Amino acid sequence: MTDRVDPDHRLDWAREARTGLPEAILADGKTSGQLDAIVQTVIAEGRRMLMTRLGADEAARLTSNFRHGVVFHPASMTAVIGLQDIPPAQPGPPVAIVTAGTSDLTVAEEARATLHFAGVPGGIVADVGVAGLWRLLDVVDELRKAPVVIAVAGMEGALFSVLAGLVPAPLIAVPTSKGYGVAAGGQAALSSALATCAPGVTCVNIDNGFGAACAAIKMLALRGPRRDELARDRQV
Amino acid sequence: MTDRVDPDHRLDWAREARTGLPEAILADGKTSGQLDAIVQTVIAEGRRMLMTRLGADEAARLTSNFRHGVVFHPASMTAVIGLQDIPPAQPGPPVAIVTAGTSDLTVAEEARATLHFAGVPGGIVADVGVAGLWRLLDVVDELRKAPVVIAVAGMEGALFSVLAGLVPAPLIAVPTSKGYGVAAGGQAALSSALATCAPGVTCVNIDNGFGAACAAIKMLALRGPRRDELARDRQV
Amino acid sequence: MTDRVDPDHRLDWAREARTGLPEAILADGKTSGQLDAIVQTVIAEGRRMLMTRLGADEAARLTSNFRHGVVFHPASMTAVIGLQDIPPAQPGPPVAIVTAGTSDLTVAEEARATLHFAGVPGGIVADVGVAGLWRLLDVVDELRKAPVVIAVAGMEGALFSVLAGLVPAPLIAVPTSKGYGVAAGGQAALSSALATCAPGVTCVNIDNGFGAACAAIKMLALRGPRRDELARDRQV
Amino acid sequence: MTDRVDPDHRLDWAREARTGLPEAILADGKTSGQLDAIVQTVIAEGRRMLMTRLGADEAARLTSNFRHGVVFHPASMTAVIGLQDIPPAQPGPPVAIVTAGTSDLTVAEEARATLHFAGVPGGIVADVGVAGLWRLLDVVDELRKAPVVIAVAGMEGALFSVLAGLVPAPLIAVPTSKGYGVAAGGQAALSSALATCAPGVTCVNIDNGFGAACAAIKMLALRGPRRDELARDRQV
Amino acid sequence: MTDRVDPDHRLDWAREARTGLPEAILADGKTSGQLDAIVQTVIAEGRRMLMTRLGADEAARLTSNFRHGVVFHPASMTAVIGLQDIPPAQPGPPVAIVTAGTSDLTVAEEARATLHFAGVPGGIVADVGVAGLWRLLDVVDELRKAPVVIAVAGMEGALFSVLAGLVPAPLIAVPTSKGYGVAAGGQAALSSALATCAPGVTCVNIDNGFGAACAAIKMLALRGPRRDELARDRQV
Amino acid sequence: MTDRVDPDHRLDWAREARTGLPEAILADGKTSGQLDAIVQTVIAEGRRMLMTRLGADEAARLTSNFRHGVVFHPASMTAVIGLQDIPPAQPGPPVAIVTAGTSDLTVAEEARATLHFAGVPGGIVADVGVAGLWRLLDVVDELRKAPVVIAVAGMEGALFSVLAGLVPAPLIAVPTSKGYGVAAGGQAALSSALATCAPGVTCVNIDNGFGAACAAIKMLALRGPRRDELARDRQV
Amino acid sequence: MTDRVDPDHRLDWAREARTGLPEAILADGKTSGQLDAIVQTVIAEGRRMLMTRLGADEAARLTSNFRHGVVFHPASMTAVIGLQDIPPAQPGPPVAIVTAGTSDLTVAEEARATLHFAGVPGGIVADVGVAGLWRLLDVVDELRKAPVVIAVAGMEGALFSVLAGLVPAPLIAVPTSKGYGVAAGGQAALSSALATCAPGVTCVNIDNGFGAACAAIKMLALRGPRRDELARDRQV
Amino acid sequence: MTDRVDPDHRLDWAREARTGLPEAILADGKTSGQLDAIVQTVIAEGRRMLMTRLGADEAARLTSNFRHGVVFHPASMTAVIGLQDIPPAQPGPPVAIVTAGTSDLTVAEEARATLHFAGVPGGIVADVGVAGLWRLLDVVDELRKAPVVIAVAGMEGALFSVLAGLVPAPLIAVPTSKGYGVAAGGQAALSSALATCAPGVTCVNIDNGFGAACAAIKMLALRGPRRDELARDRQV
Repeated sequence: MTDRVDPDHRLDWAREARTGLPEAILADGKTSGQLDAIVQTVIAEGRRMLMTRLGADEAARLTSNFRHGVVFHPASMTAVIGLQDIPPAQPGPPVAIVTAGTSDLTVAEEARATLHFAGVPGGIVADVGVAGLWRLLDVVDELRKAPVVIAVAGMEGALFSVLAGLVPAPLIAVPTSKGYGVAAGGQAALSSALATCAPGVTCVNIDNGFGAACAAIKMLALRGPRRDELARDRQV
Repeated sequence: MTDRVDPDHRLDWAREARTGLPEAILADGKTSGQLDAIVQTVIAEGRRMLMTRLGADEAARLTSNFRHGVVFHPASMTAVIGLQDIPPAQPGPPVAIVTAGTSDLTVAEEARATLHFAGVPGGIVADVGVAGLWRLLDVVDELRKAPVVIAVAGMEGALFSVLAGLVPAPLIAVPTSKGYGVAAGGQAALSSALATCAPGVTCVNIDNGFGAACAAIKMLALRGPRRDELARDRQV
Repeated sequence: MTDRVDPDHRLDWAREARTGLPEAILADGKTSGQLDAIVQTVIAEGRRMLMTRLGADEAARLTSNFRHGVVFHPASMTAVIGLQDIPPAQPGPPVAIVTAGTSDLTVAEEARATLHFAGVPGGIVADVGVAGLWRLLDVVDELRKAPVVIAVAGMEGALFSVLAGLVPAPLIAVPTSKGYGVAAGGQAALSSALATCAPGVTCVNIDNGFGAACAAIKMLALRGPRRDELARDRQV
Repeated sequence: MTDRVDPDHRLDWAREARTGLPEAILADGKTSGQLDAIVQTVIAEGRRMLMTRLGADEAARLTSNFRHGVVFHPASMTAVIGLQDIPPAQPGPPVAIVTAGTSDLTVAEEARATLHFAGVPGGIVADVGVAGLWRLLDVVDELRKAPVVIAVAGMEGALFSVLAGLVPAPLIAVPTSKGYGVAAGGQAALSSALATCAPGVTCVNIDNGFGAACAAIKMLALRGPRRDELARDRQV
Repeated sequence: MTDRVDPDHRLDWAREARTGLPEAILADGKTSGQLDAIVQTVIAEGRRMLMTRLGADEAARLTSNFRHGVVFHPASMTAVIGLQDIPPAQPGPPVAIVTAGTSDLTVAEEARATLHFAGVPGGIVADVGVAGLWRLLDVVDELRKAPVVIAVAGMEGALFSVLAGLVPAPLIAVPTSKGYGVAAGGQAALSSALATCAPGVTCVNIDNGFGAACAAIKMLALRGPRRDELARDRQV
Repeated sequence: MTDRVDPDHRLDWAREARTGLPEAILADGKTSGQLDAIVQTVIAEGRRMLMTRLGADEAARLTSNFRHGVVFHPASMTAVIGLQDIPPAQPGPPVAIVTAGTSDLTVAEEARATLHFAGVPGGIVADVGVAGLWRLLDVVDELRKAPVVIAVAGMEGALFSVLAGLVPAPLIAVPTSKGYGVAAGGQAALSSALATCAPGVTCVNIDNGFGAACAAIKMLALRGPRRDELARDRQV
Repeated sequence: MTDRVDPDHRLDWAREARTGLPEAILADGKTSGQLDAIVQTVIAEGRRMLMTRLGADEAARLTSNFRHGVVFHPASMTAVIGLQDIPPAQPGPPVAIVTAGTSDLTVAEEARATLHFAGVPGGIVADVGVAGLWRLLDVVDELRKAPVVIAVAGMEGALFSVLAGLVPAPLIAVPTSKGYGVAAGGQAALSSALATCAPGVTCVNIDNGFGAACAAIKMLALRGPRRDELARDRQV
Repeated sequence: MTDRVDPDHRLDWAREARTGLPEAILADGKTSGQLDAIVQTVIAEGRRMLMTRLGADEAARLTSNFRHGVVFHPASMTAVIGLQDIPPAQPGPPVAIVTAGTSDLTVAEEARATLHFAGVPGGIVADVGVAGLWRLLDVVDELRKAPVVIAVAGMEGALFSVLAGLVPAPLIAVPTSKGYGVAAGGQAALSSALATCAPGVTCVNIDNGFGAACAAIKMLALRGPRRDELARDRQV
């Protein structure tokens, strides 16, 4: 069979200029050979990239192969690829990442690692699900100061509606696949996020902590100069 | 074609003795001829029956045909069939029927009408959905006194989890078909009721105010003498 | 049957202070009597409220009953309730509301009416679905200036991913129920919004132009003073 | 990455006072580290907690780490955490836990272990599915004495409807994930529980023996003094 | 546009010889013009055909157009097309058509009309759903004599399993679309028929009384001479 | 509310050059005002356009408003918009459009009208579903001559697999929404088209006769000069 | 925890007298302890039982523990339990078990083993799926002699409709879980069986070869004396 | 148990003459014994066959057993069976196989291997998903020369619509099972392929690279002499 000339991957370094978000790839579903090739490209081009959903075994292999070029963070299953430094954290109160249960922490950590990679501070407030409402009410004053709130919940996802009714910040719901029976896989929590009676909630795919953080990064850019002013300035 | 000898309906008057619940039928899906025949049987046998999901047109036809034998209650779409009196309300605090929104009231009224038919007092607390949590917290002390709570909610059904974490009574969730998009038809609220993080919630079919009330009636019977004592007494 | 003392509706005037969003209700699913009672409360209390998904017949009845207290906008199926003026539009470039097809315009108009009610300018760019990519590329420079983009699409919803890869603003996807076969009801477009390969997209329920606008309003508030500074100032 | 200060878990010791149900956690989905931390908290605070869906491997690890502080019950996959004694069983006939098949026993045992943890007696009647109706009719007189019936069934779940038509007690249906084809995962049994023609059945999530027992505990509390009387007494 | 030469319909008169079942068509979904053309063909060719799911309006139009050639039976929504006589009923006990509720009768009547068209006697036993088990036990001795049993049930379809465990005849389950919430459309009853714990149940599509009767006709042909003997005889 | 400046529709006249397919729009889901505006644009620009899924009422309104500019074809629910002539039919054997049942004809006619609009001959072979296999075998020699086969079937869609195993042409499956129970809406036929055991079947959305014809048009263009030759010739 | 007195299993030896089908159990989902206990009961009571879906490991364990009491048949994953002989095969042509593909053979073998256990002859005709129609047409004359046909197919299940249109015998469809994409798990084949355009097809659960054979056994009993005659004879 | 006489497999060597496609089988789901038997038949009959979805372990076993008779290609998980040579590649530009992501390459390789087996050249263009639109626009001129385009995409599948609007070739969409949450299993990408707003897209089952290539082979045959001419020539 004749060989294919085209490359297996095409990294999108222009993404940051176009959308404000740095390049990142999903490790899950790629072969070892494909991951190796991608890391090699990133290092060779002197770039910096986030890798998400990286299993422990592949992570061990990559860090062994590429050493300083791959820094793995087990709690979030993410790795920072490349030798370049990540930007220092911006000033101001952190994005609040709130979880309904202890089991939702991996997804919350993925969100925090993504924010961190983009120089945005993020703090996790864990296990404040609504079955014991006092747990949420105890922290609500703190949460009201956050510029953006990422709420992470599996099972029935009631946290999304309750929290969105209590805070002024945009709330990004991340349904998780935690739970069993009708909750298994995250469809129940996803439906709750979408069907919420609390206006202004938006949501991302099940377990998508990365996507929620990307949305938060885009929102926080609204605090800078207005885009029409930026466009005008650039034209000068 | 030879005629069928068998009757079209077989009413279950023994149900009350077996299960503590009076006979009732679902009007929706039956033809006018079938409804007429059933009402006739109830009156002829000197019985009393509840009819649910009775549309306004059929109700008008039936009340016109049978006069005092059919008493229609439009808000709940139920009718009491037969000439017998319904039992007086039992003493004690009423079953609390709580709705998340104004649109859920028809289902709540079906529950209340069913309780009423069985001599059980029920009171409705409407429009206390969790998007404005203060609305629920305002009434929670009152709700904590109820022997049984029936919670009625469409959309994402977050009310079920929050309320169940606040009251000692058994909570019966009734998802409603109110809402649009992923909430249409009630599947999102149903999933929330089943996947709830608050222990001790049970649930019934979508829009089934009747079934929730039946369950409440069975639960309230626990306040009487113990069944083993009843059995022993009967044996003597 | 004894009468219920509790009210049918409990309006949440405190919502704006808590969350930055004014009170609004969904007309669809409420009876004429319930809508009348709500409008009466709004006018009596000297408030201002948005009503969404209001059918033409109910709108005609309400405007006839309450005259100046109900202003109906047919293209968006919304009404402004109450005698109070709505706030003037904030300065700066408008939120861009982009539709894939002509059929998605009702949902886009609901978003625009909601923004308008909150004093936020919004402009619609219609029928730029990706089957003819030039239509989208023609307007992309303009769209890159918008602070927030609301993308409205039915069928397969490919617009969400393509557009999100081209603009720096947060993109809120609104799947619509337009389409037939597997697209009917909006599930295909919803899945596309959630499964998008473009990072940073968030989404709301099918046909929920109102919710998308509420999220945009919350995001735009990030352009003001920081919440921690506001909190500090208030404490002084 | 800066460390998170917030704790990973927040146990809800106040739950029992609020709702009558002791604190419990779901082991499945939590990491070893998270389970260790939770057990440590329970022991350190001198509390007592139920842990459900605990796999044999994690159970072995925990009992080895914490000895008397963790008592594992393999048949129900539950563990009692903490050094405090569990309450003695209340007098009176036990809650009847009825299974359709032999395969449903793990779920039934979870229900019984939960009742036991709360001092409520429960007895299991196994393998009385309706395909051989005599098996159920043989035990129906005994089941009619139970204050509450928990019915556990997979496959088509016909047991729920038949049994509910025969007993006066509230019947809580627990669909199980047992079966193959359209029964796999428990959706068929769940649908049967919800769509039942027998009034008064309520149901919980698939395989949720724990939740069914919690509901039973709340119902049995109705046999004590009335809540309004309790409230009045406490105020004195 | 050039005209199509091919006919709109091709009736399958050879079906009876091949499969033992006479030709029949589904009226629902066909235009008036198509139904007219089909009836005309049947009459012109001197054939006999069954038409199912024929609405009252179309039936009135057809009987007016074709008089004796179309005999409508409203209870089953079927019509016999053509001038030929239908065969006399075979001797022996009738196929038992059992319904769970009164609302299931239209589907049961479709089955009976189909049997009748093929000269097979069928009798309906209505409203013996399992919520009141005595109703079924009262008729079980009679049902045990039937050569084939067709069970028709909506909602949760528990009748299928219970009845199949009590009778020696092959049982054909016909789920109906009766019910609301999770039962709406018949999926819950269909799942019960397929997932049944009672061996030997087969099932047909939702509301398919016609198909169930066809299967029964094929089964009853087993009472005649063996097919291999027939084949041998024919060869002679 | 300020007016939107952007147009409601953007017609894609460049589509034909890019993809070989003329512009067409879906009438269903558009308002009368939107359809009027689109027709006006087409006529004003001297173009030609196909309109699909046009209901009889809207068609009557449009033909009355625009006379010769709108030619409606009721059997296919399509209209040709604009004053330009459609191209003459290409030579060669027609695309074969095969239907399983009489009820599938509207979808087949939509396919034929679309082919016709592009100057491609198409012929319909109706009602050759596999329940009477001889009907299909009778026409298979004729079908083997077609350059492309479009197979249109509802219910279980078995026609797709059988036919694809008998003909050399590419077979495009069009599932239809005809049928009831599990077939309602076309999901069963769609699944059959996708899961077919016959290699080389491709499929389009349910009821999408238009899309199938578009695919056929693109395939037939393969009979012309090779694209690389065309490109080379153009460069000269 | 107090021990449960009730047994884990209740075998239904009366089933054969009631329904004509011998007792059988599903091994899958039962623990080793439960299987051991059941086998012990069967042997101790001198009975004979079929065990289905028995994995190779459990089979090895059981045959080692119980020797002659457990005879395992790997191709069908069934075992005959007990020391009693199975009945000799009835005379006459065998039930035809037809598979669409080679992969469907395990399910077909389960059906044949079940027939065999009941003394009914069954023969398998494998890999005659409709993509190569000649394979089916080659055997159709043979299949037309069978008293009952069991058709086993995964993927799109087109075999059911084609075969049912060609044979006079009752056809029992067994969808299998073979296939990928939309076919995975068997839903596509199941839908085809239910939505079939060929009248008289009945179907059983996905992969349920056992159930299909049970239905066939019940049907074949129709060849004996009529049930009303049997009943009359017994009364004498 | 008596042995079955019928063979386990029936290879369809006549397929190529009937449909233009060579025989191929799906390895997944077949036992080792079945695969061995099939390979043996192919070699014994001197034929050539493609085997798809062959796992590495089975491949190793088969190549070891049959040496030159089995040539495995790991990247596509296919094997060529038999000793016959495969045909040389036809002249002209290759079929373009385009993937949205790196993870979709296995499916793309299956398509390429299938084309190769039939002597059709195919080239892969990888990782041009629409989130970075420039990647696709960079290659669009090249893709416009392809006679047929196979587009392979998981997640939301937006590539199908964008690409179909840019190229004149027939586009065959292959949804893949890549992705998580609502994308898991490929349903989101499949819905996008079917609901696409770009006319002329057809699609195949999820992950079915083989089927897409078969369709492409059938389409490319249109470049040869017309089928009616072939038929005429053959008759001479």
